[in-house]
Order: sequence, then C-alpha cells, then structure tokens
Amino acid sequence: MSEYILNLLPVNEAEKQEFEAIAPEAVHVYAGRRTVTPEQLEQATVLFGWPRPDDLPRARNLRWFQTMWAGTEEYDGKVPEGAVFTSSSGSNSRSVAEHMLSCLLALCRRLPTYRDAQRDHQWKDEGAMKTIFGAAVLVVGAGHIGAEFARLCQGLGAHTVGLKRTVTGPVEGFDELDTMDQLDQWLPRADVVALSLPHTPETAGLMDEGRLRRMKEDAILLNAGRGSVLDQDALARVMGEGRLWGAALDVTVPEPLPTDSPLWDIPNLLLTPHVAGGMRLEITRKACIKMAQDNLRRYLAGEPLVNRVN
Amino acid sequence: MSEYILNLLPVNEAEKQEFEAIAPEAVHVYAGRRTVTPEQLEQATVLFGWPRPDDLPRARNLRWFQTMWAGTEEYDGKVPEGAVFTSSSGSNSRSVAEHMLSCLLALCRRLPTYRDAQRDHQWKDEGAMKTIFGAAVLVVGAGHIGAEFARLCQGLGAHTVGLKRTVTGPVEGFDELDTMDQLDQWLPRADVVALSLPHTPETAGLMDEGRLRRMKEDAILLNAGRGSVLDQDALARVMGEGRLWGAALDVTVPEPLPTDSPLWDIPNLLLTPHVAGGMRLEITRKACIKMAQDNLRRYLAGEPLVNRVN
Repeated sequence: MSEYILNLLPVNEAEKQEFEAIAPEAVHVYAGRRTVTPEQLEQATVLFGWPRPDDLPRARNLRWFQTMWAGTEEYDGKVPEGAVFTSSSGSNSRSVAEHMLSCLLALCRRLPTYRDAQRDHQWKDEGAMKTIFGAAVLVVGAGHIGAEFARLCQGLGAHTVGLKRTVTGPVEGFDELDTMDQLDQWLPRADVVALSLPHTPETAGLMDEGRLRRMKEDAILLNAGRGSVLDQDALARVMGEGRLWGAALDVTVPEPLPTDSPLWDIPNLLLTPHVAGGMRLEITRKACIKMAQDNLRRYLAGEPLVNRVN
Repeated sequence: MSEYILNLLPVNEAEKQEFEAIAPEAVHVYAGRRTVTPEQLEQATVLFGWPRPDDLPRARNLRWFQTMWAGTEEYDGKVPEGAVFTSSSGSNSRSVAEHMLSCLLALCRRLPTYRDAQRDHQWKDEGAMKTIFGAAVLVVGAGHIGAEFARLCQGLGAHTVGLKRTVTGPVEGFDELDTMDQLDQWLPRADVVALSLPHTPETAGLMDEGRLRRMKEDAILLNAGRGSVLDQDALARVMGEGRLWGAALDVTVPEPLPTDSPLWDIPNLLLTPHVAGGMRLEITRKACIKMAQDNLRRYLAGEPLVNRVN
C-alpha cells in the first residue's frame, strides 16, 4: 500500500532526505500548519506535525498521525476514525527539566532578588544562600520530565525521591521511589518539592494549603506541570507569612495569569509564562524529528509504535 | 612543645570536640574575630580563622596561621616572621562554581528578562532559549573554581575546554586543556566563556574589546574571578550593539559598582554583588573546618601542610 507522508514538522533539507531514505517508496510532501492544503490533507496516509485540530477531520485516508507535542488534548475527538494517534511525549523533557533546574538554582542563589536590586542600581549583599549539593529533592510525578529533572539534580549531588501512582521498579535519576499516597510523609523531609504532574481529576488541587504547610519553612517549591495542581491562593498566603525560601511557577490558573494576581509581586517567587517546554530549544526540535523517523521505521516494518495515544 | 590553638573559625560543639580529639594535648581556645583578646593572640602558637589583619602581628609566638578564606592578600606583610601561612583555597570552589552555573542557566532560560516582565505583571513569551547540553564551555583559568565549574557543566552535557598557564596533565572536569596563549583561537568556538582568573599583571584587561568581538555573537560571558580581567566599558559597547546572548558578572571594577555605571541597565546582563563565594553556604563553612582539621593532623605529624602560601 503506497504511503502519502504529509510532513508538517519544521524539517531542514538534510532531515527531509533522511525521511525519504527511510521510506523511499512513499510520496513525501512538506508543508506548514498554515500552508497545508485541503487536498494534501485528503491524500495523506501518514501525518506528522502540528496541524490545526479543525483541519484534521479532512484527512479521510489517514492511517497514522504523530503530533509534534507531548500533550494531545487539543486533538481529542478530531483524529479520523481508524487512524493510529501517537504523541512526541518525552521530546521536550530536557527543556522542561533544565528550566526547572535553572529556576531552582536561581532561587538558591537569590538571583530574582539580585535582579530586582540591579534594576534599582543597588549593590547589596543578601547573605546566606542554598546549594543543591546534598539537598533532598522530592519530585511529585516521576514521568519523563520528573525523571529527567531528578537525573540533572542527582548529577549535581542532590538526593532524589520520586513519587508516582505505582512503583514497579527503579527509575533512572531517583535514589528512592514511593507511591503518591505517601506524599504527606515526604513533604516535611524535602528541601525542594518539584511538581511535575498533568491535570487530572486526581491531581487538581493536590498541593493545597495543608500540604504547603507540611513543607519545611525554608524549602523551595517548583511547578512546571499544570497550574491546577497547586492552590495559588494558599501559596500566596503561606509565602506572605514568610514561609518557604522561594518558589518558581511556569504554570498558573488561568494562563495568562491575570494582572491583578498576588503572585506577581511575591518577591521570592519567580514566574515564567509557560515557557519551560515548547519548541524553544534546537534539541527539542531534533528530538521530535527523531521520534517521527524512529516511529516511521516501526510503522513501515509493521512494529508497534511508540507513544501511542489511542 | 605544647600548642596553644586559637580557633576563630565558626565552629559548633561537635566540631570543637573533633579539634580536641585531633590534638588532645593542646590548649584549645575559641573566640571570634572581634572578641579575641590581645592575651590570646600573644599565647597562640596555632591560629585558625579570620583575624583582623592588624591584630596578627601581636601573635608573637605563632608558628602556623591558616586563614578561612581562599584569598590571602589582606594578610600581606602581617604574618609574624617565622610562622607558616596557609589558606583555605578550594573551600568555596563549589559555591562559586554553582553561582556561575546558576547564572549561566538563568541566562540560557532568559530568567532575568522574565523577572523584569514579572515586575511589570507581563505574561509574554520571549521565544528561543539555550541549553547547556552540547554547549562548548571555555573556562579561562582552570584552577580550583574553574575546574569545579567545568565539572558541573560536563555533568550536564557540556563540552568543556580549560585554559591555564601551563598544562602538565589532565584535569578532572575538562574534556580539553590548552595554554592561556591560545585564548584567541578558542574564543570564536565557545558558546560560553567563563572567566575564573585572579587579579595579576598578566590577567588585568585580558578580556578586552578585541577579544569580546572574537566571541560568537550569541555566546554567553561569565566573570566570577576578578573584575579587572574584563574591560567593562568595552563590554557595555559590544552588548549595546546587540552582540552576545547575555553576560553575568559577580565582580566589577570598582566594587561596589558606581550607580551611574552603564552595566546596571543592560537588559541581558545579570549583575550580582560579589556574592559567589564567601561563607554563604554551610558546605563552605564545613569545608573550611575540614581543611583546618586535616592540616592540623599534618602539622602535628610533622608533614607538609596543604595550601601553603609562604
């Protein structure tokens, strides 16, 4: 059965040749999210990239679609019946993990405070700092991203503990693993609490006021999963009392964060506008391309695809 | 010969007992920089810590003095004749290296820009970022601190090159080593240029405008050694033209940096007020204590002392 591979990934010439070498008998068509035509969509049997969700039902001959993002919610109910749907889960893990690490270290060294002082042309020593060396890092949600973040922390000398729904065996990057229902026991022992959870009915509101108060008074909180996991009002209250060394949030509820939110002005809270992941690093783009190529090889060989959603 | 060990280090009770166990026959006296008495100084045969330089000549019976800092300039000409002088060089390497790494990652993720936006309650995506993964990191000055910084970068996936006056063998943390006179060849190849040099006649003004222009247009510059190594006016000019992805300076000339310096307002330049080292981390304090204890064992055994200055 001949394949029509509609490739909406941000590929360069060398990468196009790689795709064509993997599937020399297929038709390879390259387009962009906005430049793709209805005719191309109709002919496609394989689709890679980031099509507009509303364009997707046009792909009536589609047998397989791989999105270039880790998340897949936007395509719920849009993938044509009978087509296999795969994600690029894991492609931006390094980016998100490095963002979390960058924010953690910035808080340890009081960089937000020093940046504020710089804007005021103030040369002022803020005293004691923190180190990741020997720190107890609790990662709540030991998936792709949580494990990558733990691995980076471990490499810098931290002791890492990962919580997940079920523990089946060791996960690289973690010194210890435990189940999510043990969260309350681990919170008081952590120097760093990193939330790396998707939005689900179980995770919504998980990090509530009571749990924030179980954290060490000088601990650091990170959230780079979904904003709904954290009670933001409670965080503002708790930090307003002087608890926590600092916090860094890349996700909020809602996004963008309303300009009148109290979070903006908490001095030891670092806010970034949901930029930990996405296509901001060349290594993320390359990882997406490689995931598409690897799965294409499997597809052509009739092997099970990786990152299958449906 | 009985020893009178005057200990001005910030020690806790357990550490006092450790010192006393190492030298059970010595007299151990503990005091602070400001509380130490002339009589104590006169009796001291061994002195640890951070005495006021002008107090030091009173220690007429001194046989050995170990300062708790890596730098020793403040005691030039103050150490009593005949006394051995040692430093705590290396004790704050981890702190300085981690500060350099924190600043580097903050710049990679545009955290100073996002912090500025946060102050203005702005939720705005700033686009592309950088990663340390696969980055070519050039460390100019491969001493204790430079090597520790390189080791941290290497652990996060960077390729590290160290420059030092003379290369005698491999140094942990560096993938490659070369001599300082090859600096101009390495600058155009580096994604990150980290200056980790003391102030000497050879290093003053080393990073001048010509060398700043040899750097990649989107490279990152770090300086955590001495401010005199870098031509600050040239840096302001070069960055004013849009060159460099970013820079982070923990040292300037002079310090504090005058409020009318153009450096304060360069948006992608991160300034910290010479806080990378010092006694800001508990691990630094512990390292100083351990260095004193280790050298005390050597001293009592008649072995050569480590970190000898004179």
